[in-house]
Amino acid sequence: MSHYYSQEHHGPYELIDVGDLELEEGGRIPNCKLAVSLFGTLNDAKDNAILIPTWYSGTSKVMEEVYIGAGRALDPEKYFIIIVNQIGNGLSTSPSNAGEGLQGPNFPLVRISDDVRAQHRLLTEHFGIDSLALVVGGSMGAQQTYEWAVRYPSFVKRVAPIAGTAKNTEHDFIFAETLAEAILTDPNFNHGRYASSDLVADGLKRHAKLWTVMGWSTEFFAANRHHALGFDSMRTFVDEFMTGYFAPMDPNNLLRMMWKWQRADVSRHTGGDLAAALGRIKAKVCVMPISHDMFFPPTDAVVEHNLIPNSEFCPLQSIDGHLGLFGTDSVMLEQLDQCLFELLQH
Amino acid sequence: MSHYYSQEHHGPYELIDVGDLELEEGGRIPNCKLAVSLFGTLNDAKDNAILIPTWYSGTSKVMEEVYIGAGRALDPEKYFIIIVNQIGNGLSTSPSNAGEGLQGPNFPLVRISDDVRAQHRLLTEHFGIDSLALVVGGSMGAQQTYEWAVRYPSFVKRVAPIAGTAKNTEHDFIFAETLAEAILTDPNFNHGRYASSDLVADGLKRHAKLWTVMGWSTEFFAANRHHALGFDSMRTFVDEFMTGYFAPMDPNNLLRMMWKWQRADVSRHTGGDLAAALGRIKAKVCVMPISHDMFFPPTDAVVEHNLIPNSEFCPLQSIDGHLGLFGTDSVMLEQLDQCLFELLQH
Repeated sequence: MSHYYSQEHHGPYELIDVGDLELEEGGRIPNCKLAVSLFGTLNDAKDNAILIPTWYSGTSKVMEEVYIGAGRALDPEKYFIIIVNQIGNGLSTSPSNAGEGLQGPNFPLVRISDDVRAQHRLLTEHFGIDSLALVVGGSMGAQQTYEWAVRYPSFVKRVAPIAGTAKNTEHDFIFAETLAEAILTDPNFNHGRYASSDLVADGLKRHAKLWTVMGWSTEFFAANRHHALGFDSMRTFVDEFMTGYFAPMDPNNLLRMMWKWQRADVSRHTGGDLAAALGRIKAKVCVMPISHDMFFPPTDAVVEHNLIPNSEFCPLQSIDGHLGLFGTDSVMLEQLDQCLFELLQH
Repeated sequence: MSHYYSQEHHGPYELIDVGDLELEEGGRIPNCKLAVSLFGTLNDAKDNAILIPTWYSGTSKVMEEVYIGAGRALDPEKYFIIIVNQIGNGLSTSPSNAGEGLQGPNFPLVRISDDVRAQHRLLTEHFGIDSLALVVGGSMGAQQTYEWAVRYPSFVKRVAPIAGTAKNTEHDFIFAETLAEAILTDPNFNHGRYASSDLVADGLKRHAKLWTVMGWSTEFFAANRHHALGFDSMRTFVDEFMTGYFAPMDPNNLLRMMWKWQRADVSRHTGGDLAAALGRIKAKVCVMPISHDMFFPPTDAVVEHNLIPNSEFCPLQSIDGHLGLFGTDSVMLEQLDQCLFELLQH
């Protein structure tokens, strides 16, 4: 469908078929394909693999560009780095690219746990890997990271959830609901049966405005960080940067990811007992919220950190808030690398 | 129009005609009526008057119930307390009650400065008052409070802006824009030509959801404060409390107040120089942001505090965030009273 999700914009990535995926909510994705970007080489001991899942609206490309590199903590010269695109993000099997019967609004409901089971299959069956040196991801990537640590405690040696929680909060659930409604209220969304994203431009723009409010922070704007990023006013920042970022994305893709985001909850493994779920974790954990994050704030992250047996709390300082994940604050990235270096040493 | 704005729900209040009000944006309100609630008695020296303006969506009633009382800082036994409803709030002249030609979407654009000029006329011409012991208000009430201190520096002895700023931030402007769009996108809003608020229920509910996200705080929900307020789930809190609060209000009233809120800026007096505007203030000031406020946070308030010659910074601690203004946190109210007692002693 959309050229936005092409190799040209988000590649190189390869599509790996992990077979039929039965979904927790019922239904299945036949021949589920995970879009994967690979860096570095798996060593003979097969103990240097790092898995990086993606966040809402993101793809492997931003993770490659912002988080990995020679001399960085996530160094392809030392590690075999697998960036795996989440189901529904437009690269892996998604509403925008699914086969007959699963397209657009017919795409089934997918949970974080479905992604993590598909990734486990990818690692074990396709790559023949039976342990991970690290799982690290931001936002919905952090949700998948926590799911890995709880679902497969012996598989993962270390996990680093950035700007995300193991159990989504009620506050965050309603925030995501307002995002969904921004799109759903566009009459051209037409119950998910639109000819192209362009037709849903108004809804996508309202969705971008909500991200402007909650994604950064009031301190970000007070410090004129939007000017520093190259925009001469709040209006151009909203119209060009924020709206421009979301405009080419597929609304059905976004809505399925939102649904998944809202319901992330590792305590589904333990009948709703979050302490019991987090208590299962064997990995060494480094919990990294971002100081000015308005919907995955440090105050929510620290509660979970306190329930994990072997966890360090390493809040990242940035007035860029949640969207500091985009890599806009180089000082924050240095701090993040330091935390990861430290984590990977043990 | 709506029974919601009646004496039964929001009285007793009296309507005082302050004459024709020329508006800063052009146009005028003929025979502008301010709805006023009075408590206590003006002393012979006429130096015990306190003015309380209202916030977005609020009326004199909530200010009466939450902020004033015998033994409180705002004590009707000591002070002559004038609560004045802002133009457009449904009690004072508003889209919902205006005369021929100014009704609904035909209501003119009103600025904070128009309100404050109308209030000045009310005090001087109707009550014969030429000074105020205190102006105190929250949110848009704080915006009016700052406007009083800058526009009429010799008139006001003390001012106490709570959870609001003298110049609205760009971040807050976009937040209010998302609120407006929640209503404007309801097809039944019909460019402001609807038969009743009930028809715009969907838009008002989306508007209420945005307030749920930004009005309280993630800590508020994490601590189950919504349960403590009597709601057994997030869903009932949104559907009953938040939606129920806004549902009977008039959408055109809300939109005119939002427009006013977005553009509050005392630096309009000084060609955009905020330091110069705040430097004019002669009143003793007590700046009271609320610790967990997501759109008028302490970080924005302290910048303005630092530009005011005679100002105390007195942040109120409450995880209830901005809507702690509703009086949901009794400890915060005690702290607020202490700050006001202190301010009124000097």
